[in-house]
Amino acid sequence: MEVVYLPKILDVSRSPYAKLRTVSVSSVKVKGFMGKYFETLVNTTLPSQYELLEKTGRLDNFRIVSGKLEGSYKTYFPFDDTDVYKWSEAVSFALASRELPELEKNLNIVIEEIKNAQDEDGYIGTYLSRERKKERWTNLAWNHELYNAGHLIQAAIAYKRVTRKTSLFEVATRFADHIYNTFGPGKKEGAPGHPEVEMALVELFRETGDRKFLELSNYFLSTRGKGLASVPRNPEPEYFIDHKPFVELEEITGHAVRALYLCSGATDLYLETGDEQLWQALNRLWENFVSKKMYITGGTGSRHDWESFGEEYELPNRRSYAESCAAIANFMWNFRMLLATGEGKYSDLMEQILYNGLLAGISLDGKHYFYFNPLEDFGKTRRKKWFDCACCPPNLARFIASFPGYMYTVSDKGIQVHLYEKSSAELLLKDSSVKIEQKTNYPWEGHIYFTIETDIEEPFSIYLRVPSWSSNYSVRIDGNDNPVEMQSGYVELNRCWEGGHTIEFSLKMKPELMETHPLVRDNLGKVAVRKGPVVYCVEQVDNPDFHVWTLTVDSESMREEKCKILDREMVLLKGTGRAIELSEWKGKLYSQLSRTKEIPVLFTLVPYYAWANREPGSMGVWLRKT
Amino acid sequence: MEVVYLPKILDVSRSPYAKLRTVSVSSVKVKGFMGKYFETLVNTTLPSQYELLEKTGRLDNFRIVSGKLEGSYKTYFPFDDTDVYKWSEAVSFALASRELPELEKNLNIVIEEIKNAQDEDGYIGTYLSRERKKERWTNLAWNHELYNAGHLIQAAIAYKRVTRKTSLFEVATRFADHIYNTFGPGKKEGAPGHPEVEMALVELFRETGDRKFLELSNYFLSTRGKGLASVPRNPEPEYFIDHKPFVELEEITGHAVRALYLCSGATDLYLETGDEQLWQALNRLWENFVSKKMYITGGTGSRHDWESFGEEYELPNRRSYAESCAAIANFMWNFRMLLATGEGKYSDLMEQILYNGLLAGISLDGKHYFYFNPLEDFGKTRRKKWFDCACCPPNLARFIASFPGYMYTVSDKGIQVHLYEKSSAELLLKDSSVKIEQKTNYPWEGHIYFTIETDIEEPFSIYLRVPSWSSNYSVRIDGNDNPVEMQSGYVELNRCWEGGHTIEFSLKMKPELMETHPLVRDNLGKVAVRKGPVVYCVEQVDNPDFHVWTLTVDSESMREEKCKILDREMVLLKGTGRAIELSEWKGKLYSQLSRTKEIPVLFTLVPYYAWANREPGSMGVWLRKT
Repeated sequence: MEVVYLPKILDVSRSPYAKLRTVSVSSVKVKGFMGKYFETLVNTTLPSQYELLEKTGRLDNFRIVSGKLEGSYKTYFPFDDTDVYKWSEAVSFALASRELPELEKNLNIVIEEIKNAQDEDGYIGTYLSRERKKERWTNLAWNHELYNAGHLIQAAIAYKRVTRKTSLFEVATRFADHIYNTFGPGKKEGAPGHPEVEMALVELFRETGDRKFLELSNYFLSTRGKGLASVPRNPEPEYFIDHKPFVELEEITGHAVRALYLCSGATDLYLETGDEQLWQALNRLWENFVSKKMYITGGTGSRHDWESFGEEYELPNRRSYAESCAAIANFMWNFRMLLATGEGKYSDLMEQILYNGLLAGISLDGKHYFYFNPLEDFGKTRRKKWFDCACCPPNLARFIASFPGYMYTVSDKGIQVHLYEKSSAELLLKDSSVKIEQKTNYPWEGHIYFTIETDIEEPFSIYLRVPSWSSNYSVRIDGNDNPVEMQSGYVELNRCWEGGHTIEFSLKMKPELMETHPLVRDNLGKVAVRKGPVVYCVEQVDNPDFHVWTLTVDSESMREEKCKILDREMVLLKGTGRAIELSEWKGKLYSQLSRTKEIPVLFTLVPYYAWANREPGSMGVWLRKT
Repeated sequence: MEVVYLPKILDVSRSPYAKLRTVSVSSVKVKGFMGKYFETLVNTTLPSQYELLEKTGRLDNFRIVSGKLEGSYKTYFPFDDTDVYKWSEAVSFALASRELPELEKNLNIVIEEIKNAQDEDGYIGTYLSRERKKERWTNLAWNHELYNAGHLIQAAIAYKRVTRKTSLFEVATRFADHIYNTFGPGKKEGAPGHPEVEMALVELFRETGDRKFLELSNYFLSTRGKGLASVPRNPEPEYFIDHKPFVELEEITGHAVRALYLCSGATDLYLETGDEQLWQALNRLWENFVSKKMYITGGTGSRHDWESFGEEYELPNRRSYAESCAAIANFMWNFRMLLATGEGKYSDLMEQILYNGLLAGISLDGKHYFYFNPLEDFGKTRRKKWFDCACCPPNLARFIASFPGYMYTVSDKGIQVHLYEKSSAELLLKDSSVKIEQKTNYPWEGHIYFTIETDIEEPFSIYLRVPSWSSNYSVRIDGNDNPVEMQSGYVELNRCWEGGHTIEFSLKMKPELMETHPLVRDNLGKVAVRKGPVVYCVEQVDNPDFHVWTLTVDSESMREEKCKILDREMVLLKGTGRAIELSEWKGKLYSQLSRTKEIPVLFTLVPYYAWANREPGSMGVWLRKT
């Protein structure tokens, strides 16, 4: 069995600055919380997205270019090809977990359509074809050609790694060659208006071993800040993260997805090059980001205008943008930072993003999506079946499909467990197999029961992430208490694991109130409720007797209650609290300060990711502090 | 003396549904708080704006069309002519108060340039001239031709009423004729993308007596909601207030200035027609507006994206848009509602807008402007000298110039005093003169000492507005206590005023804490400080020892202190309070709830309108509630 062909999301097995190595998506089978998402993905999400790609003309765009169909570009945005690519990547990674004949058949059709739309010279992109061909590479700021290339390359690598078929990979490599021949020192100067290709090119280098792709990725990163990726104004170059060279950035600003994809690509470059200046910039940006610009849900991007980061501590709840793609990008960046360092602060964040801001992007029925994710709503924001700018739906699909590849990593010292989920894994360590079964009701309970099976005789370590939300935890190995110490967010269990062994990992998990830095003015005097990694919210549908925005909870009264929304089991929080009597305010907006009249209420809180799956109504994450 | 030629802002002397009649701008001389603004206006604002109209090419645009200059349209937006028109209106009304030879000379030059740019057929508009002539009336949504016409008509009426010269009026009337011949039933169908012309056409009817202009205004209002004023999407028709017929509107939405100008125009139409359906719609919208969508400063328009109203109770402070023009439009609408009803709730609001959200738009030095007005800032928002989209600066100028015309009205019963300001007035009542002198340090103190002089022998009433912020007031006439009752927000003092009499009007004015409807989530757990009509804020420049966003004030400790910022006298509020020790939060954004560490502080508050006139720094209107 050749390790290199196992379908990994990122293959950092030869990356000199990776402390951890990824595992194959196919090596882990999810059966719990994320298992449900996977079932919905393959049964509903991916088939319905295929229909939408067809119905909206996204596949026809390829057919028009290849001459199979008459007409001109059927959709609106220059990046609509990427929805096809992301869907292809999603199906590819889903195939790593399970045989899916119908989806695979459709994927092969799609790939054939893509292939036929490639130009002789390697260029592929259905927007700038035919009558618009002369505009190629003339408007890097808006035409998204390199962004399209990035998603094509990622899809092609996924398809190759999973199916071992090279058809799409050849298309992608030819386009990458074309781009390499077009851009660079002494050639055309340029930088992508929407970053994405940077990480794709590093992965293409990892897949091919051809350093020119690494060089090209590095070129695109290093040309930022020169006005090559942006327009002079409206929006400002900062929107494109083109206002400064990347290594000089101090604050994370601009379009959130652009910024976070760029950081992801820059981290990929660091994993290969170890560039110290780059690493310092990444650390500065990460610190600025997590300490000043991220929602408690892991969502990010405060402004509807230009889908951008706000200023420091600018985190409005009602008009949070928190694009679903930005949550995904946030996860992707933190995974790369984790590979570079092995530090739990990054995997903690992956968990925080996953169970909150990221999965909120998709409905429990698997076919409705949020583009932006408010943390507070007056009852009008609903998930939609699709968007003209449809970046989020297939991005969510590829994330869910690739999820098994994010749970574990390996290193020379052993195996790291980053995410907990009822699952079976068979990982390769020192060319031998280690089977790990997780039995758990995570994220609802903090007990994870591991069974480990391996023939490896030498001792190695199993590292378990201790989430930062857990104030208390314990480890028992084969039924015996095992004193442990935490380092960089993990406990290291080093011993001989030959034969069969068990680990009982218990994390203390109870509902708790969270508060925010006082300069986040929208959250001043407010608390959020978190239980383990799950952030809760209050929805009107569960609380018909008072306006949920006025609720204050008695934290001592909170008790857990299992329930199902659609087919999903989850834990609600119930208790007693107080709400404001609004009738006194009728017709008034401002008043001299007086004693607010409160009424006692019973309340129910629901996990934030599951909101807006029932009747419309107001919702809030941040509750009035007592 | 013919009343009709006195320069009124609106001449409702023959409007059948006006309960109150306006007075001439020239009949009142402001000498106090607004007097300072007037001095700055004529010495700094208007001369500097004239230079900017010249420097930015706005005047050249007219010269290019008339053939005096080679070249093509020099500026960016299709509505840049209106800056010239609004400046002309501002200078005209300023001339009603004082002789200003230099400004009048320049105004006459400007009017000559405008006149020369008019087409044979009456069309005037420098954007759609020459090579763009064929686009006339093809894009009502964006080309702003009718908006331009509205401002031209208003400027022309002002110039005629003040100077009795008809040159600009003839230009405007010819254009209005052209529009009348172009649009209407059986002619071209249309509605303006940006309302404004509706109120201008009603005023043109009032000035000329020609009902066709009233008919045309009514036509433009009644054609809304049919897709004639908007694009199908991006933005939605709601942005243009074109999603429904006006009389069916329930909620004030869309672009704030568009919506409020439209409401102003609709109220002007009501004043002439008494249309009951229109009146009901206006009342619904007003109630919705003031009870759910207005900042405590009288600013309005919550969203930067599309400069629009938000949903109900959506009033973010840090990203409040609150365009200066929207505050002006809000004032204009309420003045018209006041004329229709005589009710103090409208004039109260005029006062609230004036001293807060409106005057915040212009710096104390008279040459820097806010386009949008945050209620909370991290220290980066500063007033600018000009904007590419320069609607606000000349709009502020025309407001300040016309201010004297807003202070009083008359009716068959007597004289209404709506706004208080050290001033002298000579008003016409029953064709006789009534001289009213106000001695006051308003808005800093609540005592107004009136002297009244008239030859009118019959008794008539003087109505004094009792501001809603005043919990207590008293009236003394000629030194004697005078028991009074309030009706519709006014006390009526009915008696014979022949000869000389005095009124001492005392309003109890002390700093008080205000709170907001609990569904305005950004203000939950926060209070604002108001003294009389003036809303205060806390600026970092006065409070270097703590972050102003964390201040909570001890309201009992507050004392007043006179001070000057630049040349302006104002009253600061000082006292003791507590602020949050931020050092504990270093590097952290979220934390489990713990006791916040507070430190005792001395604080200084400054009137909101005066913020950002000194060193940059954080600012906040809403303070942490104890």
